Amino acid sequence: MTRDREVSVRFRPSGREAFVLPGTRLVEAAAEAGLMIDLPCGGEGTCGKCRLIVASGASDPTAVERKWFSDEELRSGWRLACQSTVQRPLEIEIPSASHATLDQKILVSYQGRGGKKGLEPFTRDDPLVRKKYVELAPPTRGDDVPDALRLESALGVGPLTMSLSLLREISARLREADFRGTAVFDDERLLDFEIGNTEDDAFAVAVDLGTTTLAGQLTDLATGSEWATTARLNPQTQVGDDVLSRILFAREKMDGLARLRQSVVSAVDEMIGDLCGEAGVPRQRVYELSLAGNTTMQQLFCGVDPRPLGEVPFVPAGGRGVSCPAEKLGLHIHPRGSAYVMPVIGGFVGGDTVAGMLATDLANVEGAALFVDIGTNGEIVLLADGKLTAASTAAGPAFEGARISRGMRGGAGAIEKVVFNGRLMINVIGDVPPMGICGSGLIDAAAEMLRHGALDCAGRLRTPDQLPSNVLPDMARRIVMHQGQVSFLLVDEGESADQRPITLTQRDIRELQLAAGAIRAGISILLRRAGLRPEDLQLVLLGGGFGNFIRRRNAQRIGLLPLEVERSRIRFMGNTSLSGARLAALSRRARDAAEELARRAEHVDLSTDADFAREFAEAMIFPDTEC
Amino acid sequence: MTRDREVSVRFRPSGREAFVLPGTRLVEAAAEAGLMIDLPCGGEGTCGKCRLIVASGASDPTAVERKWFSDEELRSGWRLACQSTVQRPLEIEIPSASHATLDQKILVSYQGRGGKKGLEPFTRDDPLVRKKYVELAPPTRGDDVPDALRLESALGVGPLTMSLSLLREISARLREADFRGTAVFDDERLLDFEIGNTEDDAFAVAVDLGTTTLAGQLTDLATGSEWATTARLNPQTQVGDDVLSRILFAREKMDGLARLRQSVVSAVDEMIGDLCGEAGVPRQRVYELSLAGNTTMQQLFCGVDPRPLGEVPFVPAGGRGVSCPAEKLGLHIHPRGSAYVMPVIGGFVGGDTVAGMLATDLANVEGAALFVDIGTNGEIVLLADGKLTAASTAAGPAFEGARISRGMRGGAGAIEKVVFNGRLMINVIGDVPPMGICGSGLIDAAAEMLRHGALDCAGRLRTPDQLPSNVLPDMARRIVMHQGQVSFLLVDEGESADQRPITLTQRDIRELQLAAGAIRAGISILLRRAGLRPEDLQLVLLGGGFGNFIRRRNAQRIGLLPLEVERSRIRFMGNTSLSGARLAALSRRARDAAEELARRAEHVDLSTDADFAREFAEAMIFPDTEC
Repeated sequence: MTRDREVSVRFRPSGREAFVLPGTRLVEAAAEAGLMIDLPCGGEGTCGKCRLIVASGASDPTAVERKWFSDEELRSGWRLACQSTVQRPLEIEIPSASHATLDQKILVSYQGRGGKKGLEPFTRDDPLVRKKYVELAPPTRGDDVPDALRLESALGVGPLTMSLSLLREISARLREADFRGTAVFDDERLLDFEIGNTEDDAFAVAVDLGTTTLAGQLTDLATGSEWATTARLNPQTQVGDDVLSRILFAREKMDGLARLRQSVVSAVDEMIGDLCGEAGVPRQRVYELSLAGNTTMQQLFCGVDPRPLGEVPFVPAGGRGVSCPAEKLGLHIHPRGSAYVMPVIGGFVGGDTVAGMLATDLANVEGAALFVDIGTNGEIVLLADGKLTAASTAAGPAFEGARISRGMRGGAGAIEKVVFNGRLMINVIGDVPPMGICGSGLIDAAAEMLRHGALDCAGRLRTPDQLPSNVLPDMARRIVMHQGQVSFLLVDEGESADQRPITLTQRDIRELQLAAGAIRAGISILLRRAGLRPEDLQLVLLGGGFGNFIRRRNAQRIGLLPLEVERSRIRFMGNTSLSGARLAALSRRARDAAEELARRAEHVDLSTDADFAREFAEAMIFPDTEC
Repeated sequence: MTRDREVSVRFRPSGREAFVLPGTRLVEAAAEAGLMIDLPCGGEGTCGKCRLIVASGASDPTAVERKWFSDEELRSGWRLACQSTVQRPLEIEIPSASHATLDQKILVSYQGRGGKKGLEPFTRDDPLVRKKYVELAPPTRGDDVPDALRLESALGVGPLTMSLSLLREISARLREADFRGTAVFDDERLLDFEIGNTEDDAFAVAVDLGTTTLAGQLTDLATGSEWATTARLNPQTQVGDDVLSRILFAREKMDGLARLRQSVVSAVDEMIGDLCGEAGVPRQRVYELSLAGNTTMQQLFCGVDPRPLGEVPFVPAGGRGVSCPAEKLGLHIHPRGSAYVMPVIGGFVGGDTVAGMLATDLANVEGAALFVDIGTNGEIVLLADGKLTAASTAAGPAFEGARISRGMRGGAGAIEKVVFNGRLMINVIGDVPPMGICGSGLIDAAAEMLRHGALDCAGRLRTPDQLPSNVLPDMARRIVMHQGQVSFLLVDEGESADQRPITLTQRDIRELQLAAGAIRAGISILLRRAGLRPEDLQLVLLGGGFGNFIRRRNAQRIGLLPLEVERSRIRFMGNTSLSGARLAALSRRARDAAEELARRAEHVDLSTDADFAREFAEAMIFPDTEC
């Protein structure tokens, strides 16, 4: 066990804290604490934007940092988050400019190969929700214009549309507010008139409707900053862990669709409650909701019969995004708040992929680029010659920890990082004993096992007598027989939360191979169809709710991503389904872009590709030459 | 009793029949049968448009008719509806061109004084509801685009918006229809996809929300023709017959607003059922609903608290029209059908007045013109120098038959016309014995009583000993003592439906004087403020749900309209609230025009005018010089 080697990193002004292994980069430590730091150059140290101040415990500056800061700045603790690593307990101050906020760039941006700025950031110049405080002259005998028109004049807007429910309240509201209050606009519609000045009090919730995992985020519309995040298991997993099992349930069971819909709607509504509770924000101050998921998840969520998605030729009901009152979906935010469900590309390439294209701004990369969204399904979008091609592979939920014997979501207690450096070291999310392993930890573990001889190229766990002669003692001792099968011991019994050993079984490794292989095969086919080689890719943008960063080298080592791609071109973008949904909750322009991207992308059905089976079989063999 | 003198007039192709007194013009007989004939020149015989064929029973042509038709045409029975009168039982054929239909001009149009066409008719070039039959290629393995996008392409339209409820049904609907069906658009929104070709099957309902009377009309959107009409008492009259009593009820009673709303909503929903039942049209083929009423009636209907309308300065909640799903108002048409409630001008000048301005195209008259809508309130709009000024007077419901001892709505059994020609003759609506008297009959009766000495100029019913010496015997014998007061006998006992005599009391005459006087005073004040004399008016357009035509001369005689206005300039336009609402149900352009008119009209509060009381008092004296 290596828990004793972890060190604390505290961040100001948020007060958040992370416990990480020595050697972790500051940007990863920040991510661990839930703080996203903007890396415009992708962490290469070439833009100098990810500045922060190490208030205590700073290690010596790197050569790159010396280029960016004066001696005095360096003495004051100025460092780059992408360069400095954690060596001892730290206190770090993040200047607001380094924080990824709506006011500068959202979540991620990068430069194209030619140094040209690729991303036109979605800024706050076109918010969907606007608030304006006004003071009206009360009506008098000589000035008896209707209340709604009085408000129009005071706001200086054209014809004001409002719902019947607001019209029913507007006269009483104006009088209650003594004719002073805040108009809330959702797009062009008057959503409410609130008593007093509430201009700074406006929120949106974005939701990633994953097949396995639901994730949600509360964003402050006034500042663009994130106030709370939450995640939980999709309760529909009770009827099966893939989309087909859900479609089957909807088709075969009495009220199947209604039951599936109700379960996920209740879960999302509770998550909204959790987010609001955590941030101390009343639900009625949430005016916008935006949801992204695969096509089946979105149809189930909307109560749209998914039956045609379970039969050839797998046709979705709608293509464009769905805008409707949130209450029609059964969700409780502001009673007149809106919900937006992302547009979809095809039966198996849904709103989560569109959200990912939006969040990564894939379409504007210079040269060929790939976006890979790793969830229960693996969606792949290739940009080549300005054309977007999208496909889906049934990767299975291994990367989300499902179908793995000790697998779990990337939450507190999950082993999210595994490093073998003579001795096996693990990093656990949160300040708790390990409970299981999440996707990024699984990739790490398999890669290290492969590198150090515990796995062979075909993914077979070597038994003690098959181990190579140069295997290191701490690796050898972890090959154990557990419950009658050969297993790899990650955490000794007595060190885990439940006092049981945490192991990986041969079956776990197979699940990982299948998941990685399916995605790798999809990548190969899309590249081949475009006449491209992996080394032609200028960028590989990786999305997924792993809970933390994937180690790029390890993702290549286990065959998830092509080995031929230069490592610096691989970028981990986090949960792009969630961040894309968030953009669509904030900006009309982002929403328009999403609609355009969904229609622009061509949908490729991999299962009809003659090469798919062979590519899939080939991708099962680990490519690393070391094995 | 003169029932025996009435003659039958049958109309083809509708098969409708009216019973009228000899001497009635054909246009009035047609109106009696519920058939509106277009009078572009206002019935002056100068346009020759109101052509019809008297198939049997034609009387000799008039000089005007001789100008318009050849001898052969005249022999074939061609006549003008505005010229020919009924002398004996007739069979009449109305060519579709004479019928007021949507395809030519709706309900009414006229020429300005300079001969220039004043009305730009609302034609079917911008219908709110459109239908289009399409056949789609079913999806295949190589053509798996989402259903909604497949429909978009087949329709050749841009991004299709549809509600969540339609999205939920669209896949099943397309498959049920075997990918052949009719898209229904409401404005730009896809409302439904119906199985098979239903292009010719689309309807709208217009409703006049009167304080006393509710009227409804079912219109065929494909042809613009009217399929059914209905009317009934507003059930809110149970809590009081004027708007203030309703406001008081809403304010003082537990759930007062909800109860008032529910009662009128139920009544309107039943009327929709009656209209559909009569025409054999299913409710789900009604896609649009349009409602017009005074400000209080509209607010009560929408469930908007009318309290501020009952207190100085009488402020309405909304000004602009309300568009919302019909189901939100509690009305059952197509489940995704829309409702539109007309814009209002002020607290006492509401959507019915706006509808009237729309239906009469008041704003485009050349020269000064007046629109008077006679209902429970009398609304007056003056057009002078291109400026619209609107006011309301609390006329009371006398013209709708309320507060009159034997008063009734202009429906079957109502005495709608009274002529004294040596002998008293009455015309009763429908082929039934008389039950009471409606507004037009009341005006006639009072005018004839005045003319023949039964009433004096102050509106006093003369007792037998006060009658002038030259009074005719049939007039003298009708001055009777009934239930202890002097009364005027309209129908002898035994001749009426309930075998009781139908009489007018002194109190009835007073109610009529008050109603007419209030309107007359309002007209005087608006004219004076604009610096105009009555003779400056080029047109006086009269609206109201009297059930039938008002005799213009009689309306002047009892002081409702200024005597100085040349009689040919007075036009009776029927229920303009209903016909304006109908336009707004059919045409986007009409709806836009209504919104513009409402904002353009200036609201004048007569009660703040120093002259009102004096004008009112003066207007109580009948102006006719004969008395």
